[in-house]
Amino acid sequence: MTVAAVNLAIEKEAQIHQNKLTKPRGALGRLEDVACWFSSRQGKVRPDTLKPHIAVFAGDHGVTEEGISAFPSVVTGEMVKNFARGGAAINVLARQCCATLSVVDVGVLIDVSELEGVEHKKVKSGTANLLHKAAMSETECAAAIEAGRAEAKAAIANGANLLIAGDMGIGNTTASACIICRLVDASPEAVVGFGTGVDENGRKLKVDVVTKALERISGITNTQVLYEVGGLEIAAMAGFYLQAAESGVPILIDGFIASAAALAAKEIEPQVVDWMLASHVSHENGHALALAALGLSALIDFEMRLGEGSGAALVVPLLQSAIALHNEMATFASAGVTDKDG
Amino acid sequence: MTVAAVNLAIEKEAQIHQNKLTKPRGALGRLEDVACWFSSRQGKVRPDTLKPHIAVFAGDHGVTEEGISAFPSVVTGEMVKNFARGGAAINVLARQCCATLSVVDVGVLIDVSELEGVEHKKVKSGTANLLHKAAMSETECAAAIEAGRAEAKAAIANGANLLIAGDMGIGNTTASACIICRLVDASPEAVVGFGTGVDENGRKLKVDVVTKALERISGITNTQVLYEVGGLEIAAMAGFYLQAAESGVPILIDGFIASAAALAAKEIEPQVVDWMLASHVSHENGHALALAALGLSALIDFEMRLGEGSGAALVVPLLQSAIALHNEMATFASAGVTDKDG
Repeated sequence: MTVAAVNLAIEKEAQIHQNKLTKPRGALGRLEDVACWFSSRQGKVRPDTLKPHIAVFAGDHGVTEEGISAFPSVVTGEMVKNFARGGAAINVLARQCCATLSVVDVGVLIDVSELEGVEHKKVKSGTANLLHKAAMSETECAAAIEAGRAEAKAAIANGANLLIAGDMGIGNTTASACIICRLVDASPEAVVGFGTGVDENGRKLKVDVVTKALERISGITNTQVLYEVGGLEIAAMAGFYLQAAESGVPILIDGFIASAAALAAKEIEPQVVDWMLASHVSHENGHALALAALGLSALIDFEMRLGEGSGAALVVPLLQSAIALHNEMATFASAGVTDKDG
Repeated sequence: MTVAAVNLAIEKEAQIHQNKLTKPRGALGRLEDVACWFSSRQGKVRPDTLKPHIAVFAGDHGVTEEGISAFPSVVTGEMVKNFARGGAAINVLARQCCATLSVVDVGVLIDVSELEGVEHKKVKSGTANLLHKAAMSETECAAAIEAGRAEAKAAIANGANLLIAGDMGIGNTTASACIICRLVDASPEAVVGFGTGVDENGRKLKVDVVTKALERISGITNTQVLYEVGGLEIAAMAGFYLQAAESGVPILIDGFIASAAALAAKEIEPQVVDWMLASHVSHENGHALALAALGLSALIDFEMRLGEGSGAALVVPLLQSAIALHNEMATFASAGVTDKDG
């Protein structure tokens, strides 16, 4: 499959429409760009209201045995239970932005197979320790990617026209830092952050682990990075993005982990970025570097560092407002307002 | 009247509550601060959902005869008609954020007295040319402030718990630049921007007009600035803010004009800023300087420069999400999730 083409002729028509609306040209700033971006992706001068779907992918990380996280691995499964009961941040934000939400176990360490409200697509119970060996096999990685693709296909079949991937996985800022360092050619010192809340000594330990993992994989190709140092949830997110772009459905990128997954997807299919908007820039070090490498510019900076898709879900109402302004404002002609250049 | 006191004890309780929620501490970034800010202003550990009211104040400016605007004065009245018919940006954004909206004529040049859907509180038909003389008399300024106060009182009586003032007035970036330059002690070169879309020559002309107006008023006190170089809509916005703060109701500040009005209100009652949140930083030069002088930090930067209250209305869903997260998320204890510091 290949990534769908963007309709640039429609984008131009949408820009012409923007310039007829009763406001000084350009006065709505980035809202104008956002509306025209959706025009070209939906192929409609007046884009439809967004029907967002959020898929949270969960998986554990063998590298937690190095002590790189403030929370123990058991929290991944506990948070999956919290998602299933509706008590996590992403549940609240999905309700706020009228998104449908699914939770997908692709690699949680503990057994959550009896849990209702969770899609059970476990590839294996957590990755191997990326410091010492490949986090997963190429086959396992392909299975996780396929789980992400299936999730995107189901959401699109259900009417979603905006796809958000969220993550849950204790240890996944370390895995993501490895991916980002390698794929954007940045130093661990510049990319590794405080994750869920380690102190400066904890961060130094993470820098050390990432540095050694990068040495271990120095001989591999970029397309091997995802299974060598990635996570099962990160691979699923990459598959989710690839399917969205192939189906021609816009993607809203969340934070640090989502951007690592986006970079991994871009290694597989460079044009996938044509279908991506960045929501927020995370407080986690190195996220800005990842966004720059994707050619994306975040809409907000709220100093968030939660994951789960939370930053993306938060931004959805801003996108809806951009589309509503584009579709509902009067024109200079219809309102009888004197145009500057009229 | 004096400004209402903020309940800092409740704010501390709200922060303690935030730290019990199922997320790493601080991981929701500014959303946590916003929720706790509303806790202390509402005096409730779990603040109520916001019921926003937007009042757009309209007035004309005699200084337009200097050719400082890209649009003619007639557009102020034409846009008031557009507001009344529901076709302007602020109408769309008010619908998006479920705000009530009122449009108040305090100084439109043309006669709009027959227009339904507008509150008719005209003090006079546009200000005098601030380059040569006082824009309005002290008495006219007091009447405009009173119109703003009455609007805030009515909105609060109607159940609003978040007040937004918007502006419409061709020429008002020039008036606002005069206010901001004088009250934050900044140069016209640093503060004057492109307004509704003048070119660089137009901006230089504005800088020149502002410079000369500041020379004319160099001998006056700061509290006289509002009627010497202000606008009727700006004075009304200042009154709206003062009444909100005295009534203990939070204010969401829009852009450049709103910040000039906020600075003028602060000269009258310094504590008024305790009740203000900044929504966005405008693309108009000097807005960041005005926000810094108010001690406020904008939540978003969308490169907007429209006024009408549009930037503030856009941000309302982010505030609602902050409050919903604070009120609806599970705690570590209730969800059975292992706490890092538990």
